[in-house]
Order: sequence, then C-alpha cells, then structure tokens
Amino acid sequence: MKWLVPIALLAMLSAPAAAADLEANKKAVVAFYEAALNSKDFEAAAKYFGPQYIQHNPGAQDGIEGFKAFIAFLREKFPSSHSEIKKVFADGDYVILHVHAVREPGTRGRAIVDIFRLENGKIVEHWDVAQEIPEKMPHGNGMF
Amino acid sequence: MKWLVPIALLAMLSAPAAAADLEANKKAVVAFYEAALNSKDFEAAAKYFGPQYIQHNPGAQDGIEGFKAFIAFLREKFPSSHSEIKKVFADGDYVILHVHAVREPGTRGRAIVDIFRLENGKIVEHWDVAQEIPEKMPHGNGMF
Repeated sequence: MKWLVPIALLAMLSAPAAAADLEANKKAVVAFYEAALNSKDFEAAAKYFGPQYIQHNPGAQDGIEGFKAFIAFLREKFPSSHSEIKKVFADGDYVILHVHAVREPGTRGRAIVDIFRLENGKIVEHWDVAQEIPEKMPHGNGMF
Repeated sequence: MKWLVPIALLAMLSAPAAAADLEANKKAVVAFYEAALNSKDFEAAAKYFGPQYIQHNPGAQDGIEGFKAFIAFLREKFPSSHSEIKKVFADGDYVILHVHAVREPGTRGRAIVDIFRLENGKIVEHWDVAQEIPEKMPHGNGMF
C-alpha cells in the first residue's frame, strides 16, 4: 500500500538523522571518558577533541593542554581511580554524564555530573559539578 | 510536486511527537523549579508531582512530604535565596538543569545539576550534585 505524501513532509524525515547525531555524540563522549578517566590515556582521549577545549571545572587549567596535565595528575596521584558512568543523556550539541567517581578504592567517592558540548561530533567545552557522597543519608535511595 | 512514499516511512513521522514531549517535560520542570526554589510555594510546585517523589539528594527527606519540609526550610532560613537556571536539557523521561544557586544575596553560591525523571509529564524522581563556587579559578571561564 502506498500513500501520496507532499514533499514538505519529507523534510520532517530529517528528524531521525538528528537522533542519530545524539547517539553518536553519546558514544563519542563515553569513549572519551573511558579513555581519559579510566584508562588515563591522554592520546586515546585526545582524538575526541575538536580544535579547542574550553574548561569550566574550577580546579583545572584551561584547554587541551590543561586536560593533559589533569590526566598526568590522575596517573601519578590516583592510578587506581575509577569513574563509573551511571547515566548518559544527550540534547542538541550537549552530552551529560552522571558519574560515580572513586579516587581511592574502598572510599565512598563522589557524585559528579559532567556536561560536554560538541561541535561536529567533537568535544569542545566542559562543565562539571562534584559532591562528596556522605556516610549517612535520611533515606535509603543513595545518590544514584 | 508529489512523491510516492512507502507507508513504512510514515512511521518515522512520529519523531516530532517525541520532540514535543521533551519540550513539554522541560516546561514542566522549569515551572516546578521556579515555583519551588524561587517562589518557595509548595502548593504551586506540588501540582507537577506524580504519585511519588523518590529523593536522591543526600540531605533531604524522601518523598513529597520531604520536599514540603525542604521548601519550609528555605522560606524560614533563606527567604532571599535564588536559583538561576543556566541550561535545560531533556532526553527520554529525564530533564536536566544546570543551575547557579545563591542562598544569601552577595555570596558566590553553588553550581548545581538537578536531574528529574518524569512519568506521563509528571515529576517522580530527583538526583542532584552541588558544589561551592570557589573564589579563584585557574582560568577565566567561570563555572557556567
């Protein structure tokens, strides 16, 4: 069975392409995050960067070189640190990660949300917020 | 000009409906946030709740009653507190806010990311991460 469809409707078929971009962006950011935070392999992570990396983390140096210094710091000071991605979201040019980050095995660690902005599928800007997970909470739901 | 389009392609036209849900969810969460955090009006905020409110904030009581207690705390202790929404994202049943929250006017305040899960357009679950904004940063980009 076939339908006659005005060509204007065909323009709406571009929506699935946008959805594909969201999934591609998610995959790129997750691969970047694993390479950077867990493998601590700057070279493997760097291929996901665009021409710049605007940093909003309040403790990190700006730029791709600043990120390289951060990975070197992790390798030296917290070689066993591990970041577990709990949730991945994407909207427009942004990918958002909800992460449980443990710098020293056996400690409670921190809850982190990372926000990445991409251009043409490449990471160009980063914001984050981090909070220590307390020992006790007034509910049994945890922070994740 | 007209094209013959197989009916299978018509199924792809449902994509814009999903996009409408994302926008509706964003509007609901922003309205909820303004009513709750800025107007500090529990009754106005409560209409955005679904049948439950699962709380993951590590300092708050669970449930809708716990949220009511939090709004009462804000009204009493920080009546001039203000939360400015910097970014709004939506993906699936989730809405994510990047927020600059100032409890006492004139202070630097905190960067917060709130994550809300919705069911049928109503808020049913919440996670957040909060971090004090430091006086100095090694770049001029700020936390937002």
